[in-house]
Amino acid sequence: MNILVLGGDGYLGWPTALYLSRRGHRVGVVDNFARRGYDLEMGVDSLVPIVGLQQRVRRWQEISGLTIEVFVGDLTDDSFVTETLATFEPEAVVHFAEQRSAPYSMIDRKHAVYTQVNNVAGTLNLLYAIAEQDRDIHLVKLGTMGEYGTPNIDIEEGFIEITHKGRTDVMPYPKQPGSFYHLSKVHDSANIMFACRIWGIRATDLNQGIVYGQETEETVLHPDLATRFDYDGVFGTVLNRFCVQAVTGHPLTVYGTGGQTRGMLNILDTLACVELALENPADRGEFRVFNQFTESFTVEDMAEMVKAEFSGDATIVHTADPRVEKEEHYYRAAHTKLLDLGLVPNLLTPSVIQSILAVCDRYKANADVAAIRPTVDWRKTASNLVTAGTPTGESVRTSADEASSEVSSDR
Amino acid sequence: MNILVLGGDGYLGWPTALYLSRRGHRVGVVDNFARRGYDLEMGVDSLVPIVGLQQRVRRWQEISGLTIEVFVGDLTDDSFVTETLATFEPEAVVHFAEQRSAPYSMIDRKHAVYTQVNNVAGTLNLLYAIAEQDRDIHLVKLGTMGEYGTPNIDIEEGFIEITHKGRTDVMPYPKQPGSFYHLSKVHDSANIMFACRIWGIRATDLNQGIVYGQETEETVLHPDLATRFDYDGVFGTVLNRFCVQAVTGHPLTVYGTGGQTRGMLNILDTLACVELALENPADRGEFRVFNQFTESFTVEDMAEMVKAEFSGDATIVHTADPRVEKEEHYYRAAHTKLLDLGLVPNLLTPSVIQSILAVCDRYKANADVAAIRPTVDWRKTASNLVTAGTPTGESVRTSADEASSEVSSDR
Repeated sequence: MNILVLGGDGYLGWPTALYLSRRGHRVGVVDNFARRGYDLEMGVDSLVPIVGLQQRVRRWQEISGLTIEVFVGDLTDDSFVTETLATFEPEAVVHFAEQRSAPYSMIDRKHAVYTQVNNVAGTLNLLYAIAEQDRDIHLVKLGTMGEYGTPNIDIEEGFIEITHKGRTDVMPYPKQPGSFYHLSKVHDSANIMFACRIWGIRATDLNQGIVYGQETEETVLHPDLATRFDYDGVFGTVLNRFCVQAVTGHPLTVYGTGGQTRGMLNILDTLACVELALENPADRGEFRVFNQFTESFTVEDMAEMVKAEFSGDATIVHTADPRVEKEEHYYRAAHTKLLDLGLVPNLLTPSVIQSILAVCDRYKANADVAAIRPTVDWRKTASNLVTAGTPTGESVRTSADEASSEVSSDR
Repeated sequence: MNILVLGGDGYLGWPTALYLSRRGHRVGVVDNFARRGYDLEMGVDSLVPIVGLQQRVRRWQEISGLTIEVFVGDLTDDSFVTETLATFEPEAVVHFAEQRSAPYSMIDRKHAVYTQVNNVAGTLNLLYAIAEQDRDIHLVKLGTMGEYGTPNIDIEEGFIEITHKGRTDVMPYPKQPGSFYHLSKVHDSANIMFACRIWGIRATDLNQGIVYGQETEETVLHPDLATRFDYDGVFGTVLNRFCVQAVTGHPLTVYGTGGQTRGMLNILDTLACVELALENPADRGEFRVFNQFTESFTVEDMAEMVKAEFSGDATIVHTADPRVEKEEHYYRAAHTKLLDLGLVPNLLTPSVIQSILAVCDRYKANADVAAIRPTVDWRKTASNLVTAGTPTGESVRTSADEASSEVSSDR
């Protein structure tokens, strides 16, 4: 299959490209290097060193004999999108190419507007390009479980049957996202559903949980094939970050009570889920939603698990929550559609946590612990970023500075 | 009260500004003249001549002795938004300042992206400016009944209680909008609801039906105070447009069966509803939704009513529907909250239709009947606009060219 991976230089995009390439698909990667630009802006870097995209691709060619085509450009540039689709002629497009950090979107007005315009306009350009070139192209779009928020009823996969005043209809599941980033994904989902309806496009919206892990069967073949590993307060994901805190001798920081429950999945399952979606495409005109996670944990659970598996001493501290979110809530979310297609989950076993701790331990000299501190406060309209190399004034030294964010980015 | 009317040079913004000014409020008007720019782009003009904003304001001062302050600028320019709020110090902001035509948003990719970026980014800038300056400022935002689409259950006002698998929650009402424009309003609503939650802002989302009428108590005081009246295929609203077709001796064109049902309201009730919302502000942190319409009609009903009231002969023709929408559907939408606040509707009586016909007859020499034809096809990704002065090729002469669009714009 001809598969274009948008955002193919990122944390999940790159391993996805390798995985699909190894399985015999013709793979093209599209990226504008925005993710690496955010590192420069924040003054942080991936814990695990990563090489440039072209070097990655050359190394992959050398090791596997397989070619990945590279397209450098921005989805908000519509002529680039149109030309790339025309050149590559994809049968499927896997779309990771969005600004994907909740705290980044909440830094200030500029970052909020950037996140929404970048994500929404890029996806609109893609929808138009697909509709113009070939309406059979299957769009596999990365959404997030964070689109749903934490309602007091069970979360279903994209749609819910509602009986109201004696009548019944199947409706889009109501969304209550928790950041301008999560909102951008909700906007995307609504736009894609509409494009499917008017143009007969095929789309799968993968509402993904929070991903943990760094190694895949392909990325471990050579250091140049490694994918990035984020642990900072803006882009780091919760379990990855707890592991970095443990190996660097810092307390594992949990916001509030830690009762926030989130769907989680192993990076290996991201690859498997994307493959299952590709192998079983949506019908023409179908907007299909899969909830892409395998287990739910509270933040406190995750901290306890990391503490239990870490060979040294780890402590857990609780701090004020800079996010506006429920710290204790009902959470039960359906996630059967991918299991029905054959997903065999890689669960969060002690050995998995140990393997992540091992990665963190190997590269702990790279860790800038100051960058773990949460600097983005949901209740403020502008937050000073305290990152490596940034002079920090007293004004930004709040109690939250003592601790790191618990679910700092969405994935 | 200090009230800033955003989009105060437009069809509804201008009469709203006059109405509030006459009732003793201090009124400021913000506009970037985008609406007049669309006229230039389309090669059409308001049926009723309108003068420039500054001249309108001068005339109003002369007639009423009341001053309306003018701020010329764009909501996507964040420093303009911040400075305007700082200068005027509003207690309430009435926000009409969005691209508001469904067909305009569906012309092609560029117009879709423009509509969403313009509307969403402008509203985000406004939310930030309010949160930064004064979180007590009451935002009265114009949404649309088109956010809901046409579900097979009753439409409620913004929220719905859902019982699912033995649990119950009050959730945002699921949205199924029918154009990239309507989607932009859905995106706005979600962003505003979130801003209320995290920042404690007060907001009222007025999900307005389709407005008819052109005269208000204030606009009739002098020709220079008139508001615009759109009848073209892109910006004209259905009832206004049927009236222009009648007085110019053209058939009233109904798409498909004409069973599409829509909530409607008189322009006088737009003013009354905005005033009621202002007088009864949302609580701090409250995101409140009012469904702002007074009666529901099918498109066929409206055509029949115009035909019945027109003094001459009017015929009704049915043509293929260029929109993707249900032509026959269940439609029952709650609209009690504004009635509970005291709204006394101006219903669509024969004399109201006659008064709109009289306006159309007075200015019928200005009508460019060719501009009524529907040129935007929802199923295509790019439509050639056939407007006055545009050379039209054979390629755009479809069967739909014989007829005009029935609900060509949202309001």
